[in-house]
Amino acid sequence: MTKPLEFWFEFASTYSYPAAMQVEAACAARGVPLVWKPFLLGPVFGAQGMTDSPFNLYPVKGAYMWRDMERICAAAALPLHKPSTFPRGSMLAARICAAHADADWIGDFVRAVYSANFAEDLDIGAADVIGPVLQALGQEAATIIDSAGTPEAKQALRALTDDAIARGIFGAPSFTVGTELFWGHDRMDMALTEAAGGD
Amino acid sequence: MTKPLEFWFEFASTYSYPAAMQVEAACAARGVPLVWKPFLLGPVFGAQGMTDSPFNLYPVKGAYMWRDMERICAAAALPLHKPSTFPRGSMLAARICAAHADADWIGDFVRAVYSANFAEDLDIGAADVIGPVLQALGQEAATIIDSAGTPEAKQALRALTDDAIARGIFGAPSFTVGTELFWGHDRMDMALTEAAGGD
Repeated sequence: MTKPLEFWFEFASTYSYPAAMQVEAACAARGVPLVWKPFLLGPVFGAQGMTDSPFNLYPVKGAYMWRDMERICAAAALPLHKPSTFPRGSMLAARICAAHADADWIGDFVRAVYSANFAEDLDIGAADVIGPVLQALGQEAATIIDSAGTPEAKQALRALTDDAIARGIFGAPSFTVGTELFWGHDRMDMALTEAAGGD
Repeated sequence: MTKPLEFWFEFASTYSYPAAMQVEAACAARGVPLVWKPFLLGPVFGAQGMTDSPFNLYPVKGAYMWRDMERICAAAALPLHKPSTFPRGSMLAARICAAHADADWIGDFVRAVYSANFAEDLDIGAADVIGPVLQALGQEAATIIDSAGTPEAKQALRALTDDAIARGIFGAPSFTVGTELFWGHDRMDMALTEAAGGD
């Protein structure tokens, strides 16, 4: 029996980039419903006692990650420009997703924000970057950016991040199918197989 | 042009278990020469400021890893019995490999030690576990175990671990092909493709 795939992503997270670019098409190809689950890694890392990205805390691992990202993006024909700031502020874009989770432009918005961060090296934390992204999707940028500052939007993202921690999520991207958790872009196929009912 | 695949493994490392069980057959299937590279993770983690396995330091990540290992081993038809002690002492088996890297029984020895740790829940740090493993391979157990205590064997393993750190290795299993580094059981296919010349 097919189950929904919940895709947990953080706009600052490197390996979330190829996953975010591929997940909607991959779900469609397998007939799996997709649920977008934006969250913030900061509180998740904080719950593990970390004060920064593990890729910054462990520079040897960070150096490897960037080389691995080059190979993965090349294999997926995705452009990659190492962001001049890492990690980038992801609060604004994540609150927009949390507040508009069911909007029909969410998938396009997610992909455009990841492209801005990892292909165009733009500061996705800034309203003057996110505004044009929304406009290009035909949306009312100012209204949507304002909505991200409401108590409801803040609470929606906080609830998602709390839920991530409660489910044992410790990094991004992650995938959940029922109570099964899969961590990493390289587990996307395994998660899809689980969601598709083991086929 | 085909290049050798160097397989960096640590007998205590969980994800090294499926990799170690599969790597020789996978290399043979691709016509890739395999070089066994035993090393110790303790000094590697120490160089990153960690005093224990990250799976013990970050228990949420550890819990995920054991579930992930169950799925991976089930998919590969490998038995898995969570070791009652983790990580297990790997010094003796690693020194034996370092001292006998070119012996024709190394592949069988590596696989038998991983089975003892991860399928049979035996203390691979003990000579009375490693001895019968060697005997079952038709080797002179006492002579080989004694050889692991020589200054040459200790120095050989120390040199391998120093080389791992110098190459930017930060976890196990890892694979190197020339200067390209791949980390994790899930990167084995990518490393094999690199070794096979991109085919």
